[in-house]
Amino acid sequence: MARILSFSTASGSGYGLLKQDGVVDLSARHGKTWPTLREVIEAGALTRLAEEGESLAADVPLSEITYEIPIPSPEKIICVGVNFPDRNEEYKDGQAAPSNPSLFIRFPRSFTGHDRPLIRPPESPQLDYEGEIVIVIGKGGRRIAEKDALDHVAALSLCNEGTIRDWVRHAKFNVTQGKNFDATGSIGPWLVPFTDESQLADIQLTTRVNGEVRQQDRTSRMIFSFRKIINYISTFTTLVPGDVIVCGTPTGAGARFDPPIWLKPGDVVEVEADGIGILRNTIADEKV
Amino acid sequence: MARILSFSTASGSGYGLLKQDGVVDLSARHGKTWPTLREVIEAGALTRLAEEGESLAADVPLSEITYEIPIPSPEKIICVGVNFPDRNEEYKDGQAAPSNPSLFIRFPRSFTGHDRPLIRPPESPQLDYEGEIVIVIGKGGRRIAEKDALDHVAALSLCNEGTIRDWVRHAKFNVTQGKNFDATGSIGPWLVPFTDESQLADIQLTTRVNGEVRQQDRTSRMIFSFRKIINYISTFTTLVPGDVIVCGTPTGAGARFDPPIWLKPGDVVEVEADGIGILRNTIADEKV
Repeated sequence: MARILSFSTASGSGYGLLKQDGVVDLSARHGKTWPTLREVIEAGALTRLAEEGESLAADVPLSEITYEIPIPSPEKIICVGVNFPDRNEEYKDGQAAPSNPSLFIRFPRSFTGHDRPLIRPPESPQLDYEGEIVIVIGKGGRRIAEKDALDHVAALSLCNEGTIRDWVRHAKFNVTQGKNFDATGSIGPWLVPFTDESQLADIQLTTRVNGEVRQQDRTSRMIFSFRKIINYISTFTTLVPGDVIVCGTPTGAGARFDPPIWLKPGDVVEVEADGIGILRNTIADEKV
Repeated sequence: MARILSFSTASGSGYGLLKQDGVVDLSARHGKTWPTLREVIEAGALTRLAEEGESLAADVPLSEITYEIPIPSPEKIICVGVNFPDRNEEYKDGQAAPSNPSLFIRFPRSFTGHDRPLIRPPESPQLDYEGEIVIVIGKGGRRIAEKDALDHVAALSLCNEGTIRDWVRHAKFNVTQGKNFDATGSIGPWLVPFTDESQLADIQLTTRVNGEVRQQDRTSRMIFSFRKIINYISTFTTLVPGDVIVCGTPTGAGARFDPPIWLKPGDVVEVEADGIGILRNTIADEKV
């Protein structure tokens, strides 16, 4: 399984292939043509670059890199809300499962990379985790049919869709503000090129806090399948290469406990999925 | 009043100063340093460029340009919902005016430029208008105090925050999809550099359909002032130069009529505000 990451070092930012002992710096070789992984994906070159990297020795030791979110500036990051059966029941509003996916948007700066702290802002103690699968669009399109939808996926990743829970209901409508505090979520650690539906169809997704399993479910139980999500979103907006879709979280966020259990400095959150990896973050208070 | 626009011609895209008889092509002179108006604003050079343009003759006749949205790729476009007093009452849910602004996000591709058609998609006949004031951020920041907020505004513009009304309530939460059909809204026609609070404090905002006034109110009646909006948004996200904030619409959208009056091909919608200009769009059915 090829793992392609975006990273920064003391001398700048780049992308590369992760190997046992370090990173093959692919941006040093191709950065003029493709400044970021977004352009690599747009060129349809992700798998080819991974293959090239396999034949090369690591250039940068792991100890020198900081993980960045895999696509630093996607045109869009679209998140699906309420996409696992028990999750709808958590709202206790007596409504049946919805007929269309609820969608919201996050800005790239609301996310940080793997192995870096999620930032708890002074405005609220209610920082919560949500482990999710990420798909990255390869081939763009509008009104993509479900049968063709997976042909439009270039890569997979993971997201801790970290949320400031009380700010999600801060206003009359929309969750925007609770989902967009700077660096409250994470994406990564890397991209895994998508080649086959079996990589997505029925994989286990787990979120652990300090080693304790808090969320665990299988993608086969999603209310809206990956195919349906791509079909629905592309009904209204043209998807383009590098677009990031965050596909929804299983039941078991901290808000669900009575009393709720919020993340606090020192906690370690891990989001893991079969065949993709483990996205790990600590928590730190914002320095203001 | 300087009017700085983004445009395209048969030979590419650029930005310039609008004069009586055409456009002074400022991107031909500064495009290598500042590819778009976002970088011009980031450099704090908007007013200086306008002054430079005043002394030059027009390069491009108006008949050769197509208006583009003023900031083609802002980091963020954030929209404020329910920001005029009667607008809250339109929801007839018995709730008092909200204590925090409701916010949602639109992608740049959901907008088109001045003098171009808004696109009615085949999925719904419920294309509706919403006339709004736009502020463009000049100096970035986080947790900007209300007293300092207007120092962070670089320019003003207008928005027809066109909406597919039934898709706003298509899912359990969030208005994302009804607000993001490609080219259903518009921003423009141009930017007016912001220099003084009197440009914003109490100006009249009017929306006309086929010449008939449908929305009309004054910015002094906004529930959340421009200062408050900047303060609130910057509480959770770092604002950066070129960010676009769409500040809310007065009562009187087509959805309010009984029966509702949706926009249809051939209609002409104008959004006008004192000291900014008139944003005009026709309506066309999408060719699919």
